[in-house]
Amino acid sequence: MYQSDYLQNFVQKVFEKIGCPPSEAGLAAEVLLSADLRGIDSHGIARLAGYVRLYDNGRLNPTPKVTIVHETPSTATVDGDRGLGLVVAPQAMKIAMEKAEKVGSGWVSVRNSNHFGIAGYHAMMALEKDMIGWTMTNAAPLVTPTFSLEKLLGTNPVAVAVPANHEPAFVADFASTAVAYGKFEILQRKGLPAPLGWAQDAEGNTTDDSNAVKNGGGLLPLGSDREHGSHKGYGLGAIVDIFSGVLSGANYGPWVPPFATAGFMAAQAGVGLGTGHFLGAMRVDGFRPATEFKENMDTWIQRFRQAKAVEGQQVLIPGDPERESEARRRQEGIPLLEPVVDSLLDLAQRFSIPFERI
Amino acid sequence: MYQSDYLQNFVQKVFEKIGCPPSEAGLAAEVLLSADLRGIDSHGIARLAGYVRLYDNGRLNPTPKVTIVHETPSTATVDGDRGLGLVVAPQAMKIAMEKAEKVGSGWVSVRNSNHFGIAGYHAMMALEKDMIGWTMTNAAPLVTPTFSLEKLLGTNPVAVAVPANHEPAFVADFASTAVAYGKFEILQRKGLPAPLGWAQDAEGNTTDDSNAVKNGGGLLPLGSDREHGSHKGYGLGAIVDIFSGVLSGANYGPWVPPFATAGFMAAQAGVGLGTGHFLGAMRVDGFRPATEFKENMDTWIQRFRQAKAVEGQQVLIPGDPERESEARRRQEGIPLLEPVVDSLLDLAQRFSIPFERI
Repeated sequence: MYQSDYLQNFVQKVFEKIGCPPSEAGLAAEVLLSADLRGIDSHGIARLAGYVRLYDNGRLNPTPKVTIVHETPSTATVDGDRGLGLVVAPQAMKIAMEKAEKVGSGWVSVRNSNHFGIAGYHAMMALEKDMIGWTMTNAAPLVTPTFSLEKLLGTNPVAVAVPANHEPAFVADFASTAVAYGKFEILQRKGLPAPLGWAQDAEGNTTDDSNAVKNGGGLLPLGSDREHGSHKGYGLGAIVDIFSGVLSGANYGPWVPPFATAGFMAAQAGVGLGTGHFLGAMRVDGFRPATEFKENMDTWIQRFRQAKAVEGQQVLIPGDPERESEARRRQEGIPLLEPVVDSLLDLAQRFSIPFERI
Repeated sequence: MYQSDYLQNFVQKVFEKIGCPPSEAGLAAEVLLSADLRGIDSHGIARLAGYVRLYDNGRLNPTPKVTIVHETPSTATVDGDRGLGLVVAPQAMKIAMEKAEKVGSGWVSVRNSNHFGIAGYHAMMALEKDMIGWTMTNAAPLVTPTFSLEKLLGTNPVAVAVPANHEPAFVADFASTAVAYGKFEILQRKGLPAPLGWAQDAEGNTTDDSNAVKNGGGLLPLGSDREHGSHKGYGLGAIVDIFSGVLSGANYGPWVPPFATAGFMAAQAGVGLGTGHFLGAMRVDGFRPATEFKENMDTWIQRFRQAKAVEGQQVLIPGDPERESEARRRQEGIPLLEPVVDSLLDLAQRFSIPFERI
């Protein structure tokens, strides 16, 4: 187990070594580690080497000038100047929150960014101001819409964070697919098949081949097949893509550039600039007094949590598992897989930053 | 087949007979018939008798005074005064659009309303102004969240309408469940079983019993089971419930009053006022010039529609099936099931309005 402070300090130093200003490197490290703390290991420090590869390939500007290129009192489009999404997204969220402070809500679409870590981090920024936070991002195409043989959408997540009173906040943060791609990577390593309904093969049939997405198949939208509503998961992923990519002037659909996975590095000629995000903040007291709202959220949360459940289970509130993971991992530390530790040791050697395998 | 004008005229007269002012009765009839035209038969004229039952039971105010009870420049809470949701929701959407006109976006939560027809109608109001429209509504509890044995959420739909240039608009309009309850009613009439993954039984096991929801079971969220992401469908339904119910001061969760289904008429003691909606409008040119945006939407739509598809199928754009249905049914008329025609003849007799079975 690795202490989160130790890892976060290491990540910050790596980002500083590629030229990020210390405060931005620190923020990026905090956002990245929040994924590991919350148990979303696929979006955390495991991706650090990938961000460095983005830099090595000229796709990452370590000193971006994030600018508003278009705005109204409650909306804006922000250009991320090819900066780390981990830094661009919190800046965009701050703009959304400033607008919400003034006119009740603020909505910011972002172009020319890249992977921003976990959507939930940015949505949760709104909570301390008694605002509801929204985050979406598009991503490189891995998903075959209903009836499609081509991968046209990313896993395109949505996060919504809602403040409560005595109860912890409601934080939904989910991809618009049946499962995250990381689940296939785990099965691949173990040589295990996947459940049907997660992916399709190159002919469009659902398959238990955990390598299907690499071999001409695709991830299935939430709902898995037409009979179980995959067109709804496709619709949700499409909304995320349009809000993040088309509204901002970023790439969209099959043109979204890949994250820095080895062997597929260059951004293709696209239809816009970089990756797109969409962030929003609504002041709760733009609708009703905040105390009233938050007390009702407590009632909502308590009623759902106390519902009669299937034997051996309980009804969870969105955000419960991640919050419990964070509490545990802040105490006990964060488990890292050996390949992840190897990638960190490579970075440690390259940048002469101390890092010890435990 | 019944001509839509004929039916719409009939519906307007019925609403007038229960006391709605002619202009509101006309609007309500237009919204209701838009469901039949777009092929969403469960939400159209089949529900007319239900609205009248709401009136008969004192749950519907035919002459509501719809008021803004709280607002900021970009947000508002509207009280529907127990009016027809078919009339309250368009009024709320107009308020959202007026705010968007002034400050870029407008977001309106609505309390004290009831069933508002199809979500897509209200979202599509935004299109003519080059705005993106959002609609959500909560509804009476039919859905068992992941691991729950209790029905805590409605089918809670989301609709998003996005303007394009030469292409028809993108209109996603979907419930947050695997399927709509109406699909079970069709199977019940035919005595057929349901596919697994649509509903669970009273013990929380998925079942092919098409009567399960009536017999202690529940509709499953989009995703069907935990392994296939039902917690995401539950999260989406919860977001809709919170935005529609908690934000506005309407009822939420298991307290949302039922639509007027026979035998379950009275609203129970609740936690708020009536049913809740959430409507939003964002000016496209709050983010980038509208022409640029709409041209990119054309590119998006064309790329998806032309994607290589499973044999015998094609990749559809959200809204395609409904638009094709509307074009066909405006020409050919609307097919009505005999029990629906019977219910209309009952209303015709009661209110002395001519109606002929075809």
